[in-house]
Amino acid sequence: MQQVNVGLIGGGTVGGGVFRALDRNGDLLAARTGVRIRVHRVAVKAFDEPRKVAIPESMLTTDWRAVVEDSGVDVVAELAGGTTVAREMILTALRLGKPVVTANKALLSAHGEALFAAAAKAGTNLYYEASVAGGIPIIKALRDGFVGNRIPHLYGIVNGTCNYILTRMQQEGAGFDEVLKEAQRLGYAEAEPSLDIDGWDSQHKVGILASLAHGFWVRPDQIHVEGIRGVTPLDIRFAGQLGYTIKLLGVVKSVPDRRSERTGGEAPVVVAVYPALVPNAHVLASVQDAFNAVFVRGDLVGDTLFYGRGAGQDPTASAVLSDLVDAARDWIHQTPRRIPPFVPHASKGRVLPLADAVSRYYVRLAVVDRPGVLARVAAILGRNRIGISSVIQPEGHPGGSVPLILMIHDAPNRSMARALRQMGRLAAVKAPPVVLRVETFA
Amino acid sequence: MQQVNVGLIGGGTVGGGVFRALDRNGDLLAARTGVRIRVHRVAVKAFDEPRKVAIPESMLTTDWRAVVEDSGVDVVAELAGGTTVAREMILTALRLGKPVVTANKALLSAHGEALFAAAAKAGTNLYYEASVAGGIPIIKALRDGFVGNRIPHLYGIVNGTCNYILTRMQQEGAGFDEVLKEAQRLGYAEAEPSLDIDGWDSQHKVGILASLAHGFWVRPDQIHVEGIRGVTPLDIRFAGQLGYTIKLLGVVKSVPDRRSERTGGEAPVVVAVYPALVPNAHVLASVQDAFNAVFVRGDLVGDTLFYGRGAGQDPTASAVLSDLVDAARDWIHQTPRRIPPFVPHASKGRVLPLADAVSRYYVRLAVVDRPGVLARVAAILGRNRIGISSVIQPEGHPGGSVPLILMIHDAPNRSMARALRQMGRLAAVKAPPVVLRVETFA
Repeated sequence: MQQVNVGLIGGGTVGGGVFRALDRNGDLLAARTGVRIRVHRVAVKAFDEPRKVAIPESMLTTDWRAVVEDSGVDVVAELAGGTTVAREMILTALRLGKPVVTANKALLSAHGEALFAAAAKAGTNLYYEASVAGGIPIIKALRDGFVGNRIPHLYGIVNGTCNYILTRMQQEGAGFDEVLKEAQRLGYAEAEPSLDIDGWDSQHKVGILASLAHGFWVRPDQIHVEGIRGVTPLDIRFAGQLGYTIKLLGVVKSVPDRRSERTGGEAPVVVAVYPALVPNAHVLASVQDAFNAVFVRGDLVGDTLFYGRGAGQDPTASAVLSDLVDAARDWIHQTPRRIPPFVPHASKGRVLPLADAVSRYYVRLAVVDRPGVLARVAAILGRNRIGISSVIQPEGHPGGSVPLILMIHDAPNRSMARALRQMGRLAAVKAPPVVLRVETFA
Repeated sequence: MQQVNVGLIGGGTVGGGVFRALDRNGDLLAARTGVRIRVHRVAVKAFDEPRKVAIPESMLTTDWRAVVEDSGVDVVAELAGGTTVAREMILTALRLGKPVVTANKALLSAHGEALFAAAAKAGTNLYYEASVAGGIPIIKALRDGFVGNRIPHLYGIVNGTCNYILTRMQQEGAGFDEVLKEAQRLGYAEAEPSLDIDGWDSQHKVGILASLAHGFWVRPDQIHVEGIRGVTPLDIRFAGQLGYTIKLLGVVKSVPDRRSERTGGEAPVVVAVYPALVPNAHVLASVQDAFNAVFVRGDLVGDTLFYGRGAGQDPTASAVLSDLVDAARDWIHQTPRRIPPFVPHASKGRVLPLADAVSRYYVRLAVVDRPGVLARVAAILGRNRIGISSVIQPEGHPGGSVPLILMIHDAPNRSMARALRQMGRLAAVKAPPVVLRVETFA
């Protein structure tokens, strides 16, 4: 039996989970693959920090270089997170020709291109299945399973915290702040929740998915991001009445334009994160709680869904273990030195800013309840050549204003922004319009 | 750009689909992988058979050996089906050291073990992503993505024809024969439908999934099979009232027994195909029409679902293309000769006959509507130490008998079979009991 020694960087939730998973399922893994994967050394922040998974003290060090540069360490797993030191850790390991496994979506989002170039230069490889959607093997599915497909669109519920909050809000009719507090108490949300609820974590992940679907890295500043702080129980309720569920989606859409149609070349892509209305009949609407799901349309395969736990100690360990097997085989056979690894995001492409694309919309206005208001709103939309597909104006709502809900056909986002500004200036409109996109997956 | 020449065996739906997919997406595939995959020769049944996808006549031959043995053919794709000549085709190609891609579940189910042994002996590899669930990359997910997981259970809706028929029966309240005829007219069912509706196709697929989940080949005769001919609109309706949907499931369950618990060794597995009641809240209940889905629980990853089109020209081509990329890289780098391929079903294991396992049940009896009948039925179950979880006896059903529906707790299948025989002998029971299993995915 061949043995491969792994150096873990990080002994917390993810690192501890990988350590325990190798301890528990290492024999199974060895029987299945013919390779014994053994943890050799573990870099931690401090010797005396509390650890749920016990790691023998003899393996611990607080110096990550002592792990990466240890000649006994064949493969490095960077499970510490962060984007500064983590980058240095990974680059150091790659330069030593050691395959690296990482779960670090923030780092890949910011520096993926450079990291893969460094791996190629050093004749080794970088694995990142755990970086998106936890244990769901979506990286392998896009890279290998769908290698023969163009991907017209891909929609992911890739942040478990947001999906948990939106599910609770829907089921309990409760407000965002209240549910966030409950989620924090239960450990579903961080004390500093911005990374999750403002959409940044989804942004990192959707950038990685876009790179796999379209073959080139999309920079974070090319990805439009809206979080879920503005989603209210009222909008969840109205969406429900209209047959929709509100989900935070990561979106990667291929949008043919004049240039791609004229030249037959690749269409530009829209990459974005926003809360959207999803038809209840669509499979993504029924993804609840902290679960993740990625809905992928391939031109050959048609519509597919991958569903599972997007975070947590064991699901993440599942993904890291699968990468460790690939990395271990790379190391044993020195594969990337002899066989150029297939880097699925080495080509070039174009990103279309969301502002230049077309969307469907749900708009909720708070208007004074008097005749003529709808006519004025409709006139603004008409002048901007935007079509209304339906209107709801609930009766008998208490207070000085009533909600007016408009469902808007495909509208150029710039025209829509202009129309919303004009509506906001109407005297009868009492608060800034609430605006959410609607996805039909057509 | 390196080029790999493929020999296709089969120019029908699947073969034609692969030919067209390579024509349409070959440039994309080459850009992504650095390998140009080119069809070199195609074996067909007859030159003049009608073909929806045009293949240049210069490529055609009616002699499969002319394809397999052609020194210009590097990789062979067996897409003809069948279990006799197809076996010979694959063995011939493997013996020549050529990697083989196949979609042939029936052949793998019957001869998988021998075929993989032949591939290993010849220093090459056999790929079969298209054999289960069409374009859904479930083979790769189990083999690679979940390599670090034990798989306590796996449930698959893997036959699109059956799922289409059951969906239509549920939505229209129509009978099996009527819906089957409609499915045949629409091309969702074959003129000779037995392979699908009697569960044999699902049997082939579930055997392959079991081999991946548990590391050893399960023989077809070890797989209990029931089809959907016996499912009636009445049972679909009662199941609905109880909160369930009837689906044909392929089941692979690990069932710890005294031996595995005493020794700490691997538990035996139940492998079966049967129509079952699935709770409406479970994600498998919402898989409709001809779609397939595989629900996999891993001990690390937790619950996951893979969903997509399980058949059809393009989805199957998607899976074949992904395998062709692996096979092409094998060929270019002669990988399996230097690096022992990871054969995920090379170990040994035990199969527990379904008769020796425990199931939950839905039982519908047609009984004479008079006092004391339920007491007699309950007494039989009591004597066999079988618990009832609920009873429905609809009122006012026309005719001489009324239905009596029993939901049965976990019951040893042998005890249940005995109880059913005893119930059938009651004078008040007017027809053989209708029995379906209930899955709770606990």
